[in-house]
Amino acid sequence: MKPVKTGTIALLLFLSLIVRAKPPLEISRGPVSLQFSITEDGKPVYAILYNGRDVVKPSTLGFMLESDSLFYKGFSLISADRKTVDETWVPVWGEYSSIRNNYEQLTAHLKHRSGKLLDIVFRVFADGVGFRYEFPKQTGLTYFVVKDECTQFQLTGNHKAFWIPGDFDTNEYAYTTSLLSEVNNAPVVRAATDIAVRTVTDSLAVQTPLMLKTADGLYINIHEAALLNYPAMQLHIDKSGFKLSSNLVPDAYNNKAYLHAPEHTPWRTVLISDKATEILASKTILNLNDPPASTDLSWIKPMKFVGVWWEMQTGKGTWNYSDYPDSTDAHGQLIPNGRHSANTANVKRYIDFAAQHGIGGVLVEGWNRGWEDWFGNWKENVFDFVRPYPDFDIKEITSYARSKGVQMIMHNETSGSATSYERQLDTAFRFMQQFGYPAVKTGYVGRIVPRGEHHDGQWMVSHYERVLQQGMKYHIMVDAHEPARPTGLQRTYPNFMACEAARGNEYHAFSNGNQPDHETILPFTRLMGGPMDYTPGIFKLKGYAPWAPDRSVHSTLAKQLALYVTIYSPVEMVADLPENYEAKPDAFQFIKDVPVDWDDTKILEAEPGDYVTIARKEKGKNNWFIGAITDENARTAGIQLNFLQKGKKYKAVIYEDAKSAHWKTNPEAYAIRSMTVDSNTKLLLSLAPGGGAAISIMQSE
Amino acid sequence: MKPVKTGTIALLLFLSLIVRAKPPLEISRGPVSLQFSITEDGKPVYAILYNGRDVVKPSTLGFMLESDSLFYKGFSLISADRKTVDETWVPVWGEYSSIRNNYEQLTAHLKHRSGKLLDIVFRVFADGVGFRYEFPKQTGLTYFVVKDECTQFQLTGNHKAFWIPGDFDTNEYAYTTSLLSEVNNAPVVRAATDIAVRTVTDSLAVQTPLMLKTADGLYINIHEAALLNYPAMQLHIDKSGFKLSSNLVPDAYNNKAYLHAPEHTPWRTVLISDKATEILASKTILNLNDPPASTDLSWIKPMKFVGVWWEMQTGKGTWNYSDYPDSTDAHGQLIPNGRHSANTANVKRYIDFAAQHGIGGVLVEGWNRGWEDWFGNWKENVFDFVRPYPDFDIKEITSYARSKGVQMIMHNETSGSATSYERQLDTAFRFMQQFGYPAVKTGYVGRIVPRGEHHDGQWMVSHYERVLQQGMKYHIMVDAHEPARPTGLQRTYPNFMACEAARGNEYHAFSNGNQPDHETILPFTRLMGGPMDYTPGIFKLKGYAPWAPDRSVHSTLAKQLALYVTIYSPVEMVADLPENYEAKPDAFQFIKDVPVDWDDTKILEAEPGDYVTIARKEKGKNNWFIGAITDENARTAGIQLNFLQKGKKYKAVIYEDAKSAHWKTNPEAYAIRSMTVDSNTKLLLSLAPGGGAAISIMQSE
Repeated sequence: MKPVKTGTIALLLFLSLIVRAKPPLEISRGPVSLQFSITEDGKPVYAILYNGRDVVKPSTLGFMLESDSLFYKGFSLISADRKTVDETWVPVWGEYSSIRNNYEQLTAHLKHRSGKLLDIVFRVFADGVGFRYEFPKQTGLTYFVVKDECTQFQLTGNHKAFWIPGDFDTNEYAYTTSLLSEVNNAPVVRAATDIAVRTVTDSLAVQTPLMLKTADGLYINIHEAALLNYPAMQLHIDKSGFKLSSNLVPDAYNNKAYLHAPEHTPWRTVLISDKATEILASKTILNLNDPPASTDLSWIKPMKFVGVWWEMQTGKGTWNYSDYPDSTDAHGQLIPNGRHSANTANVKRYIDFAAQHGIGGVLVEGWNRGWEDWFGNWKENVFDFVRPYPDFDIKEITSYARSKGVQMIMHNETSGSATSYERQLDTAFRFMQQFGYPAVKTGYVGRIVPRGEHHDGQWMVSHYERVLQQGMKYHIMVDAHEPARPTGLQRTYPNFMACEAARGNEYHAFSNGNQPDHETILPFTRLMGGPMDYTPGIFKLKGYAPWAPDRSVHSTLAKQLALYVTIYSPVEMVADLPENYEAKPDAFQFIKDVPVDWDDTKILEAEPGDYVTIARKEKGKNNWFIGAITDENARTAGIQLNFLQKGKKYKAVIYEDAKSAHWKTNPEAYAIRSMTVDSNTKLLLSLAPGGGAAISIMQSE
Repeated sequence: MKPVKTGTIALLLFLSLIVRAKPPLEISRGPVSLQFSITEDGKPVYAILYNGRDVVKPSTLGFMLESDSLFYKGFSLISADRKTVDETWVPVWGEYSSIRNNYEQLTAHLKHRSGKLLDIVFRVFADGVGFRYEFPKQTGLTYFVVKDECTQFQLTGNHKAFWIPGDFDTNEYAYTTSLLSEVNNAPVVRAATDIAVRTVTDSLAVQTPLMLKTADGLYINIHEAALLNYPAMQLHIDKSGFKLSSNLVPDAYNNKAYLHAPEHTPWRTVLISDKATEILASKTILNLNDPPASTDLSWIKPMKFVGVWWEMQTGKGTWNYSDYPDSTDAHGQLIPNGRHSANTANVKRYIDFAAQHGIGGVLVEGWNRGWEDWFGNWKENVFDFVRPYPDFDIKEITSYARSKGVQMIMHNETSGSATSYERQLDTAFRFMQQFGYPAVKTGYVGRIVPRGEHHDGQWMVSHYERVLQQGMKYHIMVDAHEPARPTGLQRTYPNFMACEAARGNEYHAFSNGNQPDHETILPFTRLMGGPMDYTPGIFKLKGYAPWAPDRSVHSTLAKQLALYVTIYSPVEMVADLPENYEAKPDAFQFIKDVPVDWDDTKILEAEPGDYVTIARKEKGKNNWFIGAITDENARTAGIQLNFLQKGKKYKAVIYEDAKSAHWKTNPEAYAIRSMTVDSNTKLLLSLAPGGGAAISIMQSE
């Protein structure tokens, strides 16, 4: 890594800020300190230190409003409040049975020279900082338009970054690892022809969570928490001074947010640690979200699920019932293409499989009308969310599923037409309730309608929230595909089980897939905001797509198992076809055993882009599950089982790469061994290139 | 009027088109002829003649598509079909008990050099021409985007025009009468500070219906029919050659329409006559609309209505219950301002008044939550369409109204937030059904959400249709305020009773009002498309707004009565306060007597901008009603009653301006006289400046 070189311009700015600033207000917790001050020309400025080292040097705060383009200077400090919070709360589901929320808070009450009031609230945790802007109720500022937010993050050097392009409509890019000075998203965007909609206007913009590593080994993660009623924040990189500044996703008028005081922005988060594992263990983003409004949450239940899905992804069947929308017979009925997967008999096969193996749910895509020409036409009225295809007998299917103790999962693809979905939202959710569907997978593949809006803009952010609210009303859990990336909202909306908002396993089906380091970066980036429906568990790693025989999943089979632990989600898909699991019942046992809800989580080893090893304790049971993954390099993971209950014996089943395994040449080679372990055991696991290991540890006495 | 001077450029274009064109196809009906041909470079060209005189000289047709910017040339004619239609249909309600639809049709089947197909369909009626583009089902053109429509209307000279600015968001301007060469909407738009939202990007654009009069006395009206799934068309004026070309209202991306073949545009209409009365009598726009899909239409019933409305318009009461949205007491309840008009007691007063005078409906505005800060904030979530204010007891009111035989009319103001309304549409219409409301007045005051859309763009045009469809489903009649101007859709959607979409009587309450010639222009412009909820019948014409004592309605009282005949609507408001009618029971008798549904209509006299006299026969009864109005000039209207049944005697009651009456100085002076009339009677009515006369003629034997 190159030594830190601060650009001259940034240095001058830094000096001017510091020289003119009054003595800063400061709050600290553990190694993290936050300083806040106002410059002589009235700019609010903050800085973050870690064990006394600069992490974010003095950086400006504020806004350009439609009604006041200089709402970032001319402020004076009226007063400041401080408070300390130390509380513990119990999530409805998750990685921990209880979560401690412990921070120091500083609220700076500012008055602008225009008379308008602005509060900036900082919370300092032992692993980072969250801050947000609050617009108090006031006569001078009621309804207003944010043209730009002027939040900056003045970094200390040319850090290593794990980034994807700052796209208004997608987070499904492959990650690039580079120095900040090397960021240029233009070639990445150009090459990403496997992504349906790409909208990038700034080649120096990246999405958050942005994972950074300094030359001297500090890990920094920048993201946001509690994104509601506001556009997603991207980061523009000023390479000359390594200064990041907020880019908000715009609407049709290049406005960013329409607000009504009292209102506040999401929290801007900076997590810091000298240990990568502590970044993954952070609960700060979750803690910055509000508790749920409702207490009646017993209907929310994590589950694994299979789906009539991978067979379409791999070309074995189709979502659509006919090959063309106008393929109708003399009676105006659609003419079936004979390859429609979501037919009653096939769905029953999945229900049988789920029932046999104790998998809670069955997702069925392609069950409803509209798939013949759903994609790429930017049309508004695409799907009917309550009208099944003729070969999908919803009454028979739901009653069959009920008889087998299996729950059906609804699928509502919108094709990006959110207006059409909102019109049918009441109807669609009543339909789910009527047929007893406890969950829905939503989808937003395509350009957004209302035209002029983007997936990650304020309007769509509010749309996703409206769907969650509808789910809360009708007791439906939501798994959103192609939304804005998550920001810990699962605390406020515990029915927000998972979302996609990143490049999932599915890219192995319809494109060139993901690099072997992809899943080692995801926990440090996308997963910081919440669970992902990554759809792990592909067993047939080659030859699954007859029309693309060279295609393979860039992973070993053991790694596919490990992902059930390393990628947390309360709704984990068992993504492959039943027959592929039935061909390998020994390996499938791990998927059957691994739970989706946990009492505790230990991040044992982690380095972004290289490896991740995580152990989790099953909710309410004395069982542990471990997932270890590596990038394209082979690796030995050393795992100390000292988290096991002392004095107890456990049976460990280790699912690992066979000696000959390799993500590229021999991905399906695995080995399984059992052993008795206790809290003194140390395991050495050999991970193949692109490989992994999964371990179940069940209390045996 | 200046002599016609055709600009040099236009003349050259005209010559080039004619010289190169193949012999045109021609169809005629009565005095109107339509010629169609293809130029040598493949441009489709049409021309319209009236008694052999040029009305529209050869003018181009076609499109710029996103996928093919030259979809206006390179066409060849494959074939042409002709047909003659002569049919008669019965409207659910209207100005006539039956309507003859009689035209010659020519369909030109064109093939573009790209291989794409385009049909242009012309219908020639005895009073004009309608034509539209049809995109047949074809493989080369399925989903496509219209960037621009290239329809032109090459006029023959510098006609007199009655116009309002081509605004994307409003039709509520006062009319300007000028030569085409004098059109410049910029100062008009600038001055119109009484209009909430104005969006004009072309100072030479005007709205349709555009009424024109040639120097040699020909009347020409250009508009469109059956505007569905397409933006409204405005006309750009090329002053040098008096060429009009279509301007379509854009969306956020400056796209005009998103279409899916097979699809067609609305009909472009050109009505022509040497008699102004025949323009008003034309049924061509209505005939170009499709019949209704449903035959169960017996629930649609015209009616008069009073409303809790004018008292808020004039400042006596308020729509809002509190003065501020945050004006709440210790229990979080809104604190009433004490001036809220939509309270149960006041509503009952209107119900009593309606029952006493045989008026069918009572509209109540301001009954539901959201009015405290509804306007001007471009916010999305404004109103709750099912939540009354605390002082509006909907159960009691609906049961009281039912006991009195009066129907309640719902009010759904959206503040322009169509997305919010669409989300609640099911709920709102179920609510109306639950409480037995047979009709709803909708409103769109404010900037549109989805942001980027306009009142008159494709998305909103489809929104208005969705509301009509919802009304058909729930048996609710619709009176839309601030929509796109109508295009005869009441044929297809007979529950589309009326709309505003023009400058109504209400402008006398909150602005400087309308000029005395306003109502003589409306029939030739806005009303060509369909009924208007103009809200006539103001009796207290001065001193109604205490806070603006100089304000007056620019009309005499007798003219207010005449408007019930000259401005047709199946839902006519009885707009003034009950007490103002009770103060003049003799004049009020006309409003009580005048019906809202007719067997026949005779346009007796008309000149745009000067005067209109119309006689109508009551539906199913042998009674006639006449309205005569004039502009700012006094006038004697000579009315021959030869349309009365021969040999029958009738009692005529003439409500006329008193001798001293004058719209400005003495507007409320009226006189009433009765006489016996028959088909030989000729009446001479003296209309005061800005005045009018209304006559009821009831069969007396």
